[in-house]
Amino acid sequence: MTSAAPPGPASPRRRGRPGYDQATVLRTAVDLFNRRGYDATSMGDLARELGLTKAAIYHHVDGKEQLLSAAVDAALDELTAVVTEAALPVPGVSAHQRLRTAVRRSVEVLIAHRPSVTLLLRVRGNSEVELAALHRRRRLDEQLAELVREAVQEGSLRADLPPGLVSRLLFGMVNSLTEWYDPEGPDDPATVADALTSLAFDGLSRPGA
Amino acid sequence: MTSAAPPGPASPRRRGRPGYDQATVLRTAVDLFNRRGYDATSMGDLARELGLTKAAIYHHVDGKEQLLSAAVDAALDELTAVVTEAALPVPGVSAHQRLRTAVRRSVEVLIAHRPSVTLLLRVRGNSEVELAALHRRRRLDEQLAELVREAVQEGSLRADLPPGLVSRLLFGMVNSLTEWYDPEGPDDPATVADALTSLAFDGLSRPGA
Repeated sequence: MTSAAPPGPASPRRRGRPGYDQATVLRTAVDLFNRRGYDATSMGDLARELGLTKAAIYHHVDGKEQLLSAAVDAALDELTAVVTEAALPVPGVSAHQRLRTAVRRSVEVLIAHRPSVTLLLRVRGNSEVELAALHRRRRLDEQLAELVREAVQEGSLRADLPPGLVSRLLFGMVNSLTEWYDPEGPDDPATVADALTSLAFDGLSRPGA
Repeated sequence: MTSAAPPGPASPRRRGRPGYDQATVLRTAVDLFNRRGYDATSMGDLARELGLTKAAIYHHVDGKEQLLSAAVDAALDELTAVVTEAALPVPGVSAHQRLRTAVRRSVEVLIAHRPSVTLLLRVRGNSEVELAALHRRRRLDEQLAELVREAVQEGSLRADLPPGLVSRLLFGMVNSLTEWYDPEGPDDPATVADALTSLAFDGLSRPGA
C-alpha cells in the first residue's frame, strides 16, 4: 500500500481523468478524512472526490478501513523508528541527548507526514484498526516517558516535574503542530524543530535575565 | 444563556425525566458536539441524548448554532479576560512576568472549561458564528504574540527564536491539554499549570548539568 503502483490507462468510466495510483488514492482519502472526519466520510464521497464512480473506486482499494490502516501505519512506522532508535542506549550518548534527538526528529516526521499524523491523532478506537493504532501510540508514549525517566535518573533533566507529565507536555507541544503548522508560512521545518527543542530543554527565559 | 434557568416542571412529553435547565442542555450539547463532531450532530441527536422529543428541545433552545455560540463565547470570554489583563502594562511588573501569568492562567481556564475550549479549538469557520469565534481567537493570538515581542524587547526573553513561532509553540502546548488532560488522572490543575509554565520558561535541562 505504501509503494505506489504505476498509473493504469484511463478506463472509459474515468475518461478525461488521469489514472490513479494507490498513493494518490491514499493521499486524497487522508485529506478527505481530515477535512470531514473519518466516520462521516463514505467510499462514495471518496469516489466523487477522485472523479471515479463508486464501482471504480473498489478497483483501487478494498474499503475505507484499508485506507485508514495504511495511513496510520505509515505515520506510526516513522514515529516508531524515531522512538526505537532514541530508546536504544548508545555508549557516550546521554539519555538527555537521545530524548532531545527524539523530540527534534518527531517534529520533522510530523511535518513531513502531517496529513497521516493528523489522522492518527484523531483516531478514537471505534474499530479494530483504530484500537491497534491506539495500542501502538500508547507504546510510543510509554517508551518516551521511560526515556524522560532515564534522563532524570542520570541527573541531566530536572527532577522536580513528574516525568509522565513532562512527556505528555513535550509531545503535546509536538503534536500541536498538526493544528497550526503552515507549510506555506515563514518557518521551515528545521526552524520549527530547533525552536521547539530549544524551548523545551533550554526554556524561553534569557539566561541571567 | 450562561445563567441557568430553574428546572421547569416535567411536561407530559418528558414524563419521568427531570426538567432541564439551559446550563444542562448546553453542557450535554457541548459533550455531544465534541464526541460526534458539531456538523454531524443534529438537534434530533441532542433531543435523544436528553430524553426529549425533537419538538420539546426547541422549548429550551433556538437551535444548534445558538448552543455553539454560547459555548465558544463562554470559552472566549474567559480566555479574553486572561489575555487582556496580561496585555496591560503594570508598573513594576515585567512583560516576562505578565506572559508567564498568562500562560499559567490559560492552563487553568482550559482545564476548568475543557469541553467548551475543545469545541472552540475545533471550529473551522463554516458559519457566521464560527467565523466570529475564529476572529476572536486570532485577536488573542496576536495579543499573545505581541506580549512575547515585548518580553524579548525588554531583554528578559531569548531573542534567538521567532516571536510568532514561540507564541504558537507555547499556546500549542497549552491547547494540547484538550487532547490528553485527564481530570481523573494523577496531576491536578495547579501541578499541570506549574509544570507547563516552568517547562516553557525555565526548560527541562537541569541547570549546570
